Amino acid sequence: MKLAIVFGGASFEHEISIVSAITVKSVLKYTPTFIFLDDSHNFYLIDANDMNAKTFSSGAYKKMKHLSLSHGGFEIGGMFGSKKLDISVVLNLVHGSDGEDGTLASLFDFFKIAYIGPRVEASMLSFNKVMTKAYAQSIGVKTLDYEVLYRGSSHVVKTALPVIIKPARLGSSIGVSIVKEQKELEYALDTAFEYDDTILIEPFIAGVNEYNLAGCKTDKFILSMVEEPQKNEFLDFEKKYMDFSRTGAVSKADISASLESRIKAMFERIYDPLFMGSLIRCDFFEIDGEVYLNEINPIPGSMAHYLFNDFSTVIDAIASNLPRKDKISTGYDYIHSISSAKGK
Amino acid sequence: MKLAIVFGGASFEHEISIVSAITVKSVLKYTPTFIFLDDSHNFYLIDANDMNAKTFSSGAYKKMKHLSLSHGGFEIGGMFGSKKLDISVVLNLVHGSDGEDGTLASLFDFFKIAYIGPRVEASMLSFNKVMTKAYAQSIGVKTLDYEVLYRGSSHVVKTALPVIIKPARLGSSIGVSIVKEQKELEYALDTAFEYDDTILIEPFIAGVNEYNLAGCKTDKFILSMVEEPQKNEFLDFEKKYMDFSRTGAVSKADISASLESRIKAMFERIYDPLFMGSLIRCDFFEIDGEVYLNEINPIPGSMAHYLFNDFSTVIDAIASNLPRKDKISTGYDYIHSISSAKGK
Repeated sequence: MKLAIVFGGASFEHEISIVSAITVKSVLKYTPTFIFLDDSHNFYLIDANDMNAKTFSSGAYKKMKHLSLSHGGFEIGGMFGSKKLDISVVLNLVHGSDGEDGTLASLFDFFKIAYIGPRVEASMLSFNKVMTKAYAQSIGVKTLDYEVLYRGSSHVVKTALPVIIKPARLGSSIGVSIVKEQKELEYALDTAFEYDDTILIEPFIAGVNEYNLAGCKTDKFILSMVEEPQKNEFLDFEKKYMDFSRTGAVSKADISASLESRIKAMFERIYDPLFMGSLIRCDFFEIDGEVYLNEINPIPGSMAHYLFNDFSTVIDAIASNLPRKDKISTGYDYIHSISSAKGK
Repeated sequence: MKLAIVFGGASFEHEISIVSAITVKSVLKYTPTFIFLDDSHNFYLIDANDMNAKTFSSGAYKKMKHLSLSHGGFEIGGMFGSKKLDISVVLNLVHGSDGEDGTLASLFDFFKIAYIGPRVEASMLSFNKVMTKAYAQSIGVKTLDYEVLYRGSSHVVKTALPVIIKPARLGSSIGVSIVKEQKELEYALDTAFEYDDTILIEPFIAGVNEYNLAGCKTDKFILSMVEEPQKNEFLDFEKKYMDFSRTGAVSKADISASLESRIKAMFERIYDPLFMGSLIRCDFFEIDGEVYLNEINPIPGSMAHYLFNDFSTVIDAIASNLPRKDKISTGYDYIHSISSAKGK
């Protein structure tokens, strides 16, 4: 397998994606090809030795080789025509828009490029938190109560304070606020509406038990350890960001076998079959003994590598078990019959 | 405005799209540019004079000019480099997969090509009939009761016969059956599962009143007349197909002003804001005085031109009022701060 990592993107999480790519490079057993997507949707081939923050923050990447999408992969332009980039599978590591909203999934599907990452429907259902609620409900997975507000319509919040306010379509805690007092509400709503025209309001439960689990399904499920993330109320953008760049291992949550197995069962129900082809991380709450889905991260920060004992092997296993899109056969039988029926 | 019509696609409705494009050509007041997408995802520039069924059924299109996607539009390859195709807006007229599943929407968004058609979320919510049910529920629009079956799982149907069985993600009645007797059930399920891994089962109500309405929102709503489609139980693929190629006008449904206004109000609730940028047709049922949404067609056959008095003007109005994607600004502040925090 010749793995390429696509990262960057026109996304509020552009920088997180760069950090993720640098982190994944340091934990893979081999050196993949790196493909940077800038915020104007140009692809660049980045030499592994240039995979550091400065390449991007300085704009040095602009002088690197430009790539273009073509059937089956990417092409490198050159003075004497273009040649195919030698890769076999792409890992979609673009967080937020482009990566998690179905755009890159559509591009890779269209150009028949094999990829690790959520497919189009899975992207849309996990990218939009309102849709995630609907999906969870449809498969019998509990989530917290919520209300939805739209930009431009009334901003009357019915949920009792304290609440947590989130833009519907962003990750990494961007635009998220916890509101404890009425006077903080308007500012928090405005902040969230800066990032999205739809926002989600949920009750905020201080000190709730939170558990993260990552995994995928190949011929069988491969699940990570269950982690109890350390947090100071909640991880804001900057804290999560630092978190994504960690390379050390974490310790397993100290929970009962029963709770662990219920978390794993819920993960499997969420994953299968919608997320086939991707490695996702689900964040759960435990309240009064019940497990609730908080969020689905279909392209988790640094691929949640730190939750696995042998991350490289997991990536290889997904790459060898990607879902295939059936070729749709087209014909011209009806055109012939309609032409006859109309006498032309 | 220089309009280009993209049609064809790797879709079970490939042929219908060709007929739609030929029909739309005949009703527009000007001649657009025609771009054919074959079932291997190659784009071809088709001369307006070649816009007839034979060009496609004979394979003659393969000798026509090849186009490739590039930022802002399409490029025509040639002996001395490529040049930009002179178009300003694309009309997405690919029915079914590629066109209505969000693939082309993603491609046009990514390459910053202005287009008339459903955006990615709108595509996914209308393409998958199970999601359409969830969407309708979330906005307080009634739909018929339903159950969902998945390929590979138990095929026990709970809904009382007669039922209508539909693949979750296809249009144009492909794979759809009405089942009146138990003995017909297994065959109907197998037929639907040939086209999709998810199928929808609804009660079949003989002789139900059905009404179609098409429209769009620009600075205001532009709604078509309400049509009561003629049908023989339901339009199967071949009948609908013939229907798509009609160019004559239809007559307005003979319904009360109250019913008409309720149908229109429901259309507007469904459309706004999810379907901005597209011209859609919604099919409704009326049962005991209540209006139910049956289906959303975000790229209706021949653009439902026959429901409008002045179709060209409607297309021009949408083209002048396309939703804009805000440019997402990226920066490198956090990368700098993380690098300082880590001392490198």
